Amino acid sequence: MKFRISRSALTDAVSQVSKAVSNKTTVPILTGIKATVDENGLWLTGSNSDLTIQVCIPTRQDDKELVKMETMGSVVLPGRIFSDIVRKLPGDEVEWVVDDRWKTVLRSEQAQFELKGLDPEEYPRLPQFQEDQMFSLPSDLLKSMIRQTGFAVSTSEARGVLTGVLWRMEEGRLTFVATDSHRLSRRQADVEAPEGLTVENMVVPGKSQSELGKILADRTGWVDVILSENQMMVRADNLLFFSRLLDGPYPDTNRVIPQGGKTEVRVSTKEILQSVDRAALISRDGRDNVIKWTVKKEGVVQVHSAAQDVGSVLEEVSAQVDGEEMSLSFNAQYMLDALRAVDSDEIQILLTGAMTPFLIQPADREDALHLIVPIRTR
Amino acid sequence: MKFRISRSALTDAVSQVSKAVSNKTTVPILTGIKATVDENGLWLTGSNSDLTIQVCIPTRQDDKELVKMETMGSVVLPGRIFSDIVRKLPGDEVEWVVDDRWKTVLRSEQAQFELKGLDPEEYPRLPQFQEDQMFSLPSDLLKSMIRQTGFAVSTSEARGVLTGVLWRMEEGRLTFVATDSHRLSRRQADVEAPEGLTVENMVVPGKSQSELGKILADRTGWVDVILSENQMMVRADNLLFFSRLLDGPYPDTNRVIPQGGKTEVRVSTKEILQSVDRAALISRDGRDNVIKWTVKKEGVVQVHSAAQDVGSVLEEVSAQVDGEEMSLSFNAQYMLDALRAVDSDEIQILLTGAMTPFLIQPADREDALHLIVPIRTR
Repeated sequence: MKFRISRSALTDAVSQVSKAVSNKTTVPILTGIKATVDENGLWLTGSNSDLTIQVCIPTRQDDKELVKMETMGSVVLPGRIFSDIVRKLPGDEVEWVVDDRWKTVLRSEQAQFELKGLDPEEYPRLPQFQEDQMFSLPSDLLKSMIRQTGFAVSTSEARGVLTGVLWRMEEGRLTFVATDSHRLSRRQADVEAPEGLTVENMVVPGKSQSELGKILADRTGWVDVILSENQMMVRADNLLFFSRLLDGPYPDTNRVIPQGGKTEVRVSTKEILQSVDRAALISRDGRDNVIKWTVKKEGVVQVHSAAQDVGSVLEEVSAQVDGEEMSLSFNAQYMLDALRAVDSDEIQILLTGAMTPFLIQPADREDALHLIVPIRTR
Repeated sequence: MKFRISRSALTDAVSQVSKAVSNKTTVPILTGIKATVDENGLWLTGSNSDLTIQVCIPTRQDDKELVKMETMGSVVLPGRIFSDIVRKLPGDEVEWVVDDRWKTVLRSEQAQFELKGLDPEEYPRLPQFQEDQMFSLPSDLLKSMIRQTGFAVSTSEARGVLTGVLWRMEEGRLTFVATDSHRLSRRQADVEAPEGLTVENMVVPGKSQSELGKILADRTGWVDVILSENQMMVRADNLLFFSRLLDGPYPDTNRVIPQGGKTEVRVSTKEILQSVDRAALISRDGRDNVIKWTVKKEGVVQVHSAAQDVGSVLEEVSAQVDGEEMSLSFNAQYMLDALRAVDSDEIQILLTGAMTPFLIQPADREDALHLIVPIRTR
């Protein structure tokens, strides 16, 4: 195995696959990054067994030669140190030579590193996919769906399937649902899918979804999502992202979403967010991190919180109020998460009672909603 | 106590005094920030008993009225939450009212916070100083002296006086010395001092000195340093910084500094730094974090490191070499700290033997030096 490669292309690719590499793992070879060079370019793979990221550096890109292959081959290098070395190498081009015992020499200008590599045959194989269960959507849309739901998953491993996000697909409409049973976030969008494709119960681990969001961060263009029984694959340009799926049926959440309310409030997203953010400074020192809203007919939402040993906060945000006056208390962090996920300038709040779940939605669209269960207070 | 104050001036001042406030302290009132308003402005004080920071917001500055005092007074507010509130308040001006039981109301536009304050009489008094032991220097010079010595203090509390930096003053020349007994850094500068002022054994705790560097970060102009028996005070514009001093005599370090060497090397600071930085990627996985230099007559420094389970690195940096060829090994982190502290483009390395301390100095000046004790290797 011998080739030369553009250092900047290598740095980018290594930093991407490193996102999947964990320093602590029960499978030692997974602390490594697998590298395979052939006539198409260099393939790098990182994995923590839950998720796997593979990136290809093509031989040529935009008329620039990125990889100059002399002899093909494959090796696994220790992930952390390899990625640090690549980042700090001098020069524009790295020479990479591996002998038949996987001893690897990386040479760039005056610097020469020798690393002990591992047998690539011991690295786990990538899952195989049939491409019959596949749909496509713009990367930006997928990222916004991830950002607007991921925070609502349960962080307790004991909650099993609730630590994941439900991805459902029906009649070309993709729905993401996440809930920890105290709050729920849902986002929908029309995507490009073959007619008749229905996906009922695909649950993506919250951590995988969040890594997917990060690795897509700078990417535009379309991505493909491809499914098998217990794995998913996301394909974007020269990137493959694999994640295992969570077992077990995801609960039916449609029935918990109220269809109408006693009180409807419209308010500036920014004003109510800043106000809740300030009130949270007091509530976080209290027992349950509770903030109270009092919606008043004259067109204000009073935001209030008190913590026994610290003090209290009170402010008013002007709003458009239709329906009954109402007071309700909620977890400050849940509200901040929901409000920060809203892209629109105005939100609509739909209240059904002091003790029943209420909805936060962007005022100008129906494809996103956040449900929060109020907290009973004295 | 009642006044109005510019929110931006308040935010700046609170963020400065907060640097001295610790969340965990055996003296509960020190988790607070003390505020005193009078006809001169608002004085804020934060302290963790080792160091104390006081900032004054003057009534007027640059033709702008910053503080509008109605009634004088003093209060202690919980530090962390007060500083968060100030940062997140809306509007440009904050109204601040304290009643006779120290209940404090902060009001700004639509937001109103009520905080439980504490009795300011319980807050420790500031140390008193006679101004006869005082010298002055530019803030930028003090910051560079701090930066070029502070990293070399011992981090082990058991080492007592070595956890501090020795500040000595003789014939108008200020010297900083720090050592953990494996390495030593020294920086000297001429400052403005009354004739005959001699300070022999003033030891500033490493943590205090580092906080002083941070709080001076954006300040230019001159600062005064004032001494008492066991305290120091640094005065800059509207800032007072107090630190206790460490007890006990600081060891005499002059005798450990070699006066001549067997080999003198001149090399680019940046090239040797980058090279050691890369070698450290390998050495940090070894037992003692050791890097080896081999200085060769033909004008190179070979930089080498090896770690049994990982691999090795070798590179050469071109240098001007006078004297014997020599090999020596050292702790990678000590070398990185020293090289990063050097401001000059070129360094001079003075080697006295494979097992005796060696010196790193800026090539073009004699006011700074870094000594490192080599490591014995197999």
